[in-house]
Amino acid sequence: MSAGQVVRRATTGDGPAIGQLLFDFNREFDEPTPAPGVLAERISSLIGDAELDDDVADRTVVLLAGDAPPIGVAVLRFRPAIWSAGLECYLAELYVVPERRGQGAGRALLEHAVRLAREHGADTMDIGVDESDTVARRLYERLGFSNRSNGDGDLMYVYERAL
Amino acid sequence: MSAGQVVRRATTGDGPAIGQLLFDFNREFDEPTPAPGVLAERISSLIGDAELDDDVADRTVVLLAGDAPPIGVAVLRFRPAIWSAGLECYLAELYVVPERRGQGAGRALLEHAVRLAREHGADTMDIGVDESDTVARRLYERLGFSNRSNGDGDLMYVYERAL
Repeated sequence: MSAGQVVRRATTGDGPAIGQLLFDFNREFDEPTPAPGVLAERISSLIGDAELDDDVADRTVVLLAGDAPPIGVAVLRFRPAIWSAGLECYLAELYVVPERRGQGAGRALLEHAVRLAREHGADTMDIGVDESDTVARRLYERLGFSNRSNGDGDLMYVYERAL
Repeated sequence: MSAGQVVRRATTGDGPAIGQLLFDFNREFDEPTPAPGVLAERISSLIGDAELDDDVADRTVVLLAGDAPPIGVAVLRFRPAIWSAGLECYLAELYVVPERRGQGAGRALLEHAVRLAREHGADTMDIGVDESDTVARRLYERLGFSNRSNGDGDLMYVYERAL
């Protein structure tokens, strides 16, 4: 296992490293992004409460791959489910720096995320993915995710609008 | 405007009516569902805190169309955004009873939802929709939602798995 495949749960002290990774993520894909410091502060505030106890309902959990500095990040967001007494988990972000791709860090982050979500009482995990993001889609499909309802039904779309 | 188009924000006392509507929703589409009373209790607990103040971050807001009994329901879930200082709003459920469809209740619920989300500081609204649900997709598209990234880019898929 390479260093990039060691995954751990981030604490508020990891805010700066997380802010830099998320900043690099959006810059790479030409999406607008706040400065790394702004993202660091926001993420630290979101994960702050989750450090205090093991109840992740309504919480944000961040995973980091590698260390000094981390080379990949996953952002998980939890909320109570409506159709079950458990939680829903949304994988909001998954990113590995370009020069460390293809070494299993993305897969290690996603496997860790699935395990953590299950352990904390989530019944489902959801991800929104662009059609052209074939590398990510292949990874999700290899780990049992499907973009078809109940695995073999209709395609499921994300509809979105700015407000 | 017909009675079904009058939309109001639900309070915990509406739990039983909401539970019945959500139960009917999943039964109509042959999806498994808890009993109406279980859904009522869960929804009342989720919307409880939102009644107390106007801060909807990490909150669930339910809208009802019509009255005595309501004939349509929308369930909105808020959380702090990562890429902005605002909120994200997810439209988790939108349902109108079969005998009252085609009279504008769905559109009234969605318009109210967009307005409420904007007023409470949400920057974006997201919805997950099955490909074959053409009636809902047309409604979303008429109100400015798109299943293409930034409105004209890639198709956006929901990937999901049970945990």
